[in-house]
Amino acid sequence: VGRVRRPGKPSSRTQLDVGEFARYDLGRVSRTGVPEVILAEGKHPDHLVGILRALAKQGHGAIVSRLSPKVRGRLDREVKLGLPMTFHAHGRMGLLEPRRPARRTSHGVAAVVTAGTADVPIAEEAVTVLESQGAAVITAFDVGVAGLHRLTRALRRLERSQPSVYLVFAGREGALPTIVAGLVRAPVVGVPTSVGYGRGGKGEAALTAMLQSCAPIAVVNIDAAVSAALFALQLLGSRSQTD
Amino acid sequence: VGRVRRPGKPSSRTQLDVGEFARYDLGRVSRTGVPEVILAEGKHPDHLVGILRALAKQGHGAIVSRLSPKVRGRLDREVKLGLPMTFHAHGRMGLLEPRRPARRTSHGVAAVVTAGTADVPIAEEAVTVLESQGAAVITAFDVGVAGLHRLTRALRRLERSQPSVYLVFAGREGALPTIVAGLVRAPVVGVPTSVGYGRGGKGEAALTAMLQSCAPIAVVNIDAAVSAALFALQLLGSRSQTD
Amino acid sequence: VGRVRRPGKPSSRTQLDVGEFARYDLGRVSRTGVPEVILAEGKHPDHLVGILRALAKQGHGAIVSRLSPKVRGRLDREVKLGLPMTFHAHGRMGLLEPRRPARRTSHGVAAVVTAGTADVPIAEEAVTVLESQGAAVITAFDVGVAGLHRLTRALRRLERSQPSVYLVFAGREGALPTIVAGLVRAPVVGVPTSVGYGRGGKGEAALTAMLQSCAPIAVVNIDAAVSAALFALQLLGSRSQTD
Amino acid sequence: VGRVRRPGKPSSRTQLDVGEFARYDLGRVSRTGVPEVILAEGKHPDHLVGILRALAKQGHGAIVSRLSPKVRGRLDREVKLGLPMTFHAHGRMGLLEPRRPARRTSHGVAAVVTAGTADVPIAEEAVTVLESQGAAVITAFDVGVAGLHRLTRALRRLERSQPSVYLVFAGREGALPTIVAGLVRAPVVGVPTSVGYGRGGKGEAALTAMLQSCAPIAVVNIDAAVSAALFALQLLGSRSQTD
Amino acid sequence: VGRVRRPGKPSSRTQLDVGEFARYDLGRVSRTGVPEVILAEGKHPDHLVGILRALAKQGHGAIVSRLSPKVRGRLDREVKLGLPMTFHAHGRMGLLEPRRPARRTSHGVAAVVTAGTADVPIAEEAVTVLESQGAAVITAFDVGVAGLHRLTRALRRLERSQPSVYLVFAGREGALPTIVAGLVRAPVVGVPTSVGYGRGGKGEAALTAMLQSCAPIAVVNIDAAVSAALFALQLLGSRSQTD
Amino acid sequence: VGRVRRPGKPSSRTQLDVGEFARYDLGRVSRTGVPEVILAEGKHPDHLVGILRALAKQGHGAIVSRLSPKVRGRLDREVKLGLPMTFHAHGRMGLLEPRRPARRTSHGVAAVVTAGTADVPIAEEAVTVLESQGAAVITAFDVGVAGLHRLTRALRRLERSQPSVYLVFAGREGALPTIVAGLVRAPVVGVPTSVGYGRGGKGEAALTAMLQSCAPIAVVNIDAAVSAALFALQLLGSRSQTD
Amino acid sequence: VGRVRRPGKPSSRTQLDVGEFARYDLGRVSRTGVPEVILAEGKHPDHLVGILRALAKQGHGAIVSRLSPKVRGRLDREVKLGLPMTFHAHGRMGLLEPRRPARRTSHGVAAVVTAGTADVPIAEEAVTVLESQGAAVITAFDVGVAGLHRLTRALRRLERSQPSVYLVFAGREGALPTIVAGLVRAPVVGVPTSVGYGRGGKGEAALTAMLQSCAPIAVVNIDAAVSAALFALQLLGSRSQTD
Amino acid sequence: VGRVRRPGKPSSRTQLDVGEFARYDLGRVSRTGVPEVILAEGKHPDHLVGILRALAKQGHGAIVSRLSPKVRGRLDREVKLGLPMTFHAHGRMGLLEPRRPARRTSHGVAAVVTAGTADVPIAEEAVTVLESQGAAVITAFDVGVAGLHRLTRALRRLERSQPSVYLVFAGREGALPTIVAGLVRAPVVGVPTSVGYGRGGKGEAALTAMLQSCAPIAVVNIDAAVSAALFALQLLGSRSQTD
Repeated sequence: VGRVRRPGKPSSRTQLDVGEFARYDLGRVSRTGVPEVILAEGKHPDHLVGILRALAKQGHGAIVSRLSPKVRGRLDREVKLGLPMTFHAHGRMGLLEPRRPARRTSHGVAAVVTAGTADVPIAEEAVTVLESQGAAVITAFDVGVAGLHRLTRALRRLERSQPSVYLVFAGREGALPTIVAGLVRAPVVGVPTSVGYGRGGKGEAALTAMLQSCAPIAVVNIDAAVSAALFALQLLGSRSQTD
Repeated sequence: VGRVRRPGKPSSRTQLDVGEFARYDLGRVSRTGVPEVILAEGKHPDHLVGILRALAKQGHGAIVSRLSPKVRGRLDREVKLGLPMTFHAHGRMGLLEPRRPARRTSHGVAAVVTAGTADVPIAEEAVTVLESQGAAVITAFDVGVAGLHRLTRALRRLERSQPSVYLVFAGREGALPTIVAGLVRAPVVGVPTSVGYGRGGKGEAALTAMLQSCAPIAVVNIDAAVSAALFALQLLGSRSQTD
Repeated sequence: VGRVRRPGKPSSRTQLDVGEFARYDLGRVSRTGVPEVILAEGKHPDHLVGILRALAKQGHGAIVSRLSPKVRGRLDREVKLGLPMTFHAHGRMGLLEPRRPARRTSHGVAAVVTAGTADVPIAEEAVTVLESQGAAVITAFDVGVAGLHRLTRALRRLERSQPSVYLVFAGREGALPTIVAGLVRAPVVGVPTSVGYGRGGKGEAALTAMLQSCAPIAVVNIDAAVSAALFALQLLGSRSQTD
Repeated sequence: VGRVRRPGKPSSRTQLDVGEFARYDLGRVSRTGVPEVILAEGKHPDHLVGILRALAKQGHGAIVSRLSPKVRGRLDREVKLGLPMTFHAHGRMGLLEPRRPARRTSHGVAAVVTAGTADVPIAEEAVTVLESQGAAVITAFDVGVAGLHRLTRALRRLERSQPSVYLVFAGREGALPTIVAGLVRAPVVGVPTSVGYGRGGKGEAALTAMLQSCAPIAVVNIDAAVSAALFALQLLGSRSQTD
Repeated sequence: VGRVRRPGKPSSRTQLDVGEFARYDLGRVSRTGVPEVILAEGKHPDHLVGILRALAKQGHGAIVSRLSPKVRGRLDREVKLGLPMTFHAHGRMGLLEPRRPARRTSHGVAAVVTAGTADVPIAEEAVTVLESQGAAVITAFDVGVAGLHRLTRALRRLERSQPSVYLVFAGREGALPTIVAGLVRAPVVGVPTSVGYGRGGKGEAALTAMLQSCAPIAVVNIDAAVSAALFALQLLGSRSQTD
Repeated sequence: VGRVRRPGKPSSRTQLDVGEFARYDLGRVSRTGVPEVILAEGKHPDHLVGILRALAKQGHGAIVSRLSPKVRGRLDREVKLGLPMTFHAHGRMGLLEPRRPARRTSHGVAAVVTAGTADVPIAEEAVTVLESQGAAVITAFDVGVAGLHRLTRALRRLERSQPSVYLVFAGREGALPTIVAGLVRAPVVGVPTSVGYGRGGKGEAALTAMLQSCAPIAVVNIDAAVSAALFALQLLGSRSQTD
Repeated sequence: VGRVRRPGKPSSRTQLDVGEFARYDLGRVSRTGVPEVILAEGKHPDHLVGILRALAKQGHGAIVSRLSPKVRGRLDREVKLGLPMTFHAHGRMGLLEPRRPARRTSHGVAAVVTAGTADVPIAEEAVTVLESQGAAVITAFDVGVAGLHRLTRALRRLERSQPSVYLVFAGREGALPTIVAGLVRAPVVGVPTSVGYGRGGKGEAALTAMLQSCAPIAVVNIDAAVSAALFALQLLGSRSQTD
Repeated sequence: VGRVRRPGKPSSRTQLDVGEFARYDLGRVSRTGVPEVILAEGKHPDHLVGILRALAKQGHGAIVSRLSPKVRGRLDREVKLGLPMTFHAHGRMGLLEPRRPARRTSHGVAAVVTAGTADVPIAEEAVTVLESQGAAVITAFDVGVAGLHRLTRALRRLERSQPSVYLVFAGREGALPTIVAGLVRAPVVGVPTSVGYGRGGKGEAALTAMLQSCAPIAVVNIDAAVSAALFALQLLGSRSQTD
């Protein structure tokens, strides 16, 4: 008695089957307004390459996050995808350019703010995703909470662009999103970063503090910059029209 | 040598000092677009009554959440506030009516969805806050995840109103916001509820699962319906103009 | 005034044995500068009454914390101690007046600050201990973090008294001690309070956030107002000389 | 005075003593219907090799799980076992072929389903164990929860084989077993996988969510694919008769 | 602008809408082989009564779990449902008898075993659910692990009935399911019970130990006797045919 | 199809079957040297009374721990057991006197030490069990760690009795067993008590600190005074000979 | 539509902007009495080097903590800063010498004490920070708690210098700060160190035990020697006057 | 003002000062009956070598645990200690032979038992410490719990030596000490080992289950074989007389 494996047939419109191991959701953009982002971390490199090859073959683009330097190197040098792939934000993200780029209409500006310098690489992931989908982004990094003057000066500058949403990145005690949300009109999404050591380190304290915020912020998981960016894109109502 | 206590003088415009123990933030509405909500839980009843008396005396309204039946009874029967106070949502919320109600302009509709029947009282807190600020609300309760037909039928109905934001309440395994976010265009805010027993009960599993969602949702704390509603209000851009 | 250090000699003087169940440390004041505070919570009421009776019989005073209303009532009405006992701070503390009150010299001022109204009862425990030992106290309650104006105004007022130490009480996200420590010269001790619900509630988030603070604060346990006050007393160098 | 070590004598039928350090349970198959699986992880390589040598010498087969590449290499190249050993599922499992293979009778089909691509290597461990014991397996990988169409199409296909049990693998928010269990008649065993980062990552959220499932699923530990497979084998009533 | 609430129309076959707050899944039995069980705990009593009234009105039966004595009293005395309701297992479960009882065919026997006396009330919940659906049940309670003779004698007796599945209940260190699974051929489902105090108390140690079992058991959440019973029903292949 | 329940026949020598719900281990004393202790907490009062009645009927004695005042009252007043039952240590323990008391030979002395006054009731449970089995006990309560003079004086007194084992009870930071173990020759068993509030309260910090002790102590669970006492009895080699 | 990034202009007095990614707080010394310490861990090496280059260019000094050997090597060999940088405390700290060193006036002595030898490298971080700011430091390392003689002898020596504050470092069970605080007059700050394995290891037990201390100590996070030193500096009232 | 470091003078009898960083407790053997064991893990290699050099110079022996291969190599090859050092138990322990070995009198036998093969290396640490102090040891490894026959046969063999104490090592679900304690008269010390993955892995489940044991066992921390051995030595009353 052996194994019974009957492959499902590919659905040309909303789903791209890649071998037995992957089913890329092509319909997500039209259904939810945001594309599927491929998380490289945890996937077998062969699976990741297989998915990208299949997408490229059909002319589709893709956003890949949390690329290890090793896999990035392989994508950069060995693998022929047939479509150009660019790498952003200290090399953790890769953008496979679609054959026919979508035109995008941005509604409003997203503000991306960090408490410290160590939060910047995580925040850059959000900036990359937002800009890849045509959103306007304005940033203020290392505005701190241990001295309020850095913050108030930065907020004055950002408010001039009238952002529709704030993505506020902070590690350690994670107080910044609370402070920002007490001062601005736009909704604030807190993004805890894996910065800090000891009890509550690696973003645990920041996440929990943001959940306990006395200001009405919403939160994503530790270092979940991509989720925050996709949420912001939906909030901005940014839409892509394929030719 | 005694204690040195110098009272700060009341700031007539943005802050209402109540005795030594409270400073109500009158400027929050104009600064952030949403009012301060008074959390009754944890406050000494004398302090709560004192704050409401001071607000009523100035003609200001207020939203009070997590009122215990005991304190509600006292507010309902004994205390003369001078302004009418109404109680909503199974008695956990109280609305102090301002002397001159604000006119509000709602932009878009908020959809409020629950996974089960036990989540309904928590969700009603959000409905009360949203409606008190003039927002349009559409609801679908007990749409489940253990059989998808209840959910898809409900979503079809809700989508006809083109909501600008979904507040999705779920306890236990907390899967509903993820499922909803895979099917709609509007941003989804997950609200874990303190439903469920054993490991991960009281909303712990729901919260953690929402943080791990493979769909781009944002999250508030367990039972934090008020925070979710205020976040949604900012997102809706609902504004209040006082006469 | 210089510091006097008299080495504690053993011990007919430094220890009071009460039955088999208690040994009160009479020498702690001369050894460490601060008295033993009797935690009522957890002790059998008979044990508590026994200790107070034995102290009163010898003419010693005592500070009792976390008195339940039931035990307080018993001390207030039934028990004859022979020395007057007064109750402070919403009835959670009791002070047994010694036969010969100590003269105390206060060095500097302690500032006691709270983020919210719900933190006030906990903070009052610290105020009671500090004042019972002759320290000068200045307070600012409900100064918040969700709008910074309340805080900056309060700090300006407090700084005029040039406090030697700040005890900053906050529940929920516990951000206030960090903000204060970024703005003042005196050392800041953070006291997390058991305010807040959901993940990180009951002071858990506040404690962890204070431990992760990017400002150099020291921390005590949740609701440990008495420990914070005794630490502040040592810091102030407050001394008691018995006649 | 020295150490007293009296070796127990080997029990030829139900137990195979290997040095002092191991006692392989030969009777488990006849007693419980499933064989002992040797977990390589945590065992000293010398111990592992010793056990396999002893088994091979007696003509017994074995299943080895969680083989590190290093130990696999040693087994593959250096060690002469006398019986053939094959490696499966991305090299984490090894099967020592018994001298006289058992005849097996499979009762029913086991369905193995994964939520994502990253869960596939874990699920393959279960497939290997199931097939090594003669069970029929049918698979559907990467059927997702963020868009339900992938899932419903896959389930339709699987249901045509009328599986007697579903093993459903999911990381991150772990919602898939709940969804499946609401749609099929066969019992569903949830297998959380160590996929996901941040709070609740490494399978923690998935496990807890499965324990909180509102559908009647049973659960094994994170990545415990082997346990799930053995449980399924008992459930299938698959039996092995040695010649 | 007010709230927009459009009620969905009742679906006569697979779903019973009760007010706005509940949607009972009538199709679950035919879809999954097991009925929806109504968890009373956490539901507002009015909601619970409403659901039962609606079911009784249509002639449907129901299983209600975790009934508080207070709500049970109300159901027992005040509420007229129109169909008989019986209470089982120390009063925590209620069975609403359907107008036309289903005929059920049981396949095999379920063995229900407990480690201690304190586990018995939880185990009785499973017995009630199993028997209500026509399954044959055999029990052995308080068989212990601190002396193996109690266990081996009990297992000998149980094995004579050749159970198809074992539900093994244990609190504290939760070792019993592991021991049983090493001795029997049928699949073992471990049910941790909320028995025990201190670290790992309330079933936490039992659950975690069962997840770490070196025998291939599957597990449900702490005190989740109902889930275990429904899982066993699916495993037994018990089916109900309505006349 | 109904339930199949075949009662096992009572084993007159080593096991006492009580109804279906309990099997008292009469052989434990002769097998392990210590009796089974009946934990009242968690057991249904009817079950507890049933067990005691069955034991008394056979003339056996019993130790019952964690008796609630309510159940104690029932045992004290309503239930006729036929054998005398005495209550010890603030009423949490009950001793059913056997018809023919065992003669006991004590080998060595057990020292029972507490850090504070609040630990005394827990420690008294251990004293009661030890003395009920004929062991010699010597105590020192409230010896503290915040001033070492109380401790050193107490240890000097205890050491004169040359204890064979120390049971050291401490809550809060749980430092006392470590300090004692650095000063005495006999083995030290740490018993964390559920004393303390905030993070690490209820004995959590004490337990963890004892596990981390830099001295070679062994530990039991929080408030597990009975386990500690039974362990000490085995260590003392105290044996009971029935006439 | 592109990204909108408007750089804020440098504030010559209180803030030094470094690229977009960092804003060094020059005003902190005059505002709070202690300098900003640059945590190297978590920062991108390019960011760290950029900050130091910018500071050196302006003639400012800096304290850098948690330098990895790799980054230290780069700072030591490759990077030309223009100002001398020295490395302390086993290479984890670096001091950039300012062009015009501040004169400092030390008030009192800080005592730095460790429980074990493994705590010494952490404690050296505090010594380095304290001495870099001109404070007088006295040390006693490996004074233990498992035998009190080491401790009492060390404290006698330290007390001769009349310290104004004790920084007490301990891992494992973290009992030392409690013991010290029971014997001295100066305030005690507990610093848990990441020493110890198993449950409560890596400093977790030490931190929690210190929070539960029955003596009035204040605590910083695990290994947070720099925070403790800055807190002590504020406590000592040490001030720096720049020429 | 510089640092004030006054070295304490060496105490020739009970304490060996090594530089500033270590104070070896020479008096521990005569005070407590067991020697100080040097934990290599966490100590700076220079510190470890320094301590051993100082001990060897004085002719003292030492037990070193958790030696990394790297440090072991250095001790083995580079360092000249002047006294012989032998390495045991897979190289994690080192014994520095004293110039004049102590004569030891062993009282009774210690039984060392493991549940699995993976626990053997940890158990060997205990065997090494016990035998180094002259205790008689009897072992049974991999006796399992998933089939009881392995266990009962092993216990029969061990009981013939009438052990005075059992050290029972188990990872995963940690059930073995409970089972053993239900069958033997000697006290049982459970030693959880860091074996197992997923929730409760690395010994967490084993530790917690042992704390929850329904048999009266005492417990040490995860992998704390050395602590268990020292505790057993005290229990055995083994004493060393130096010539």
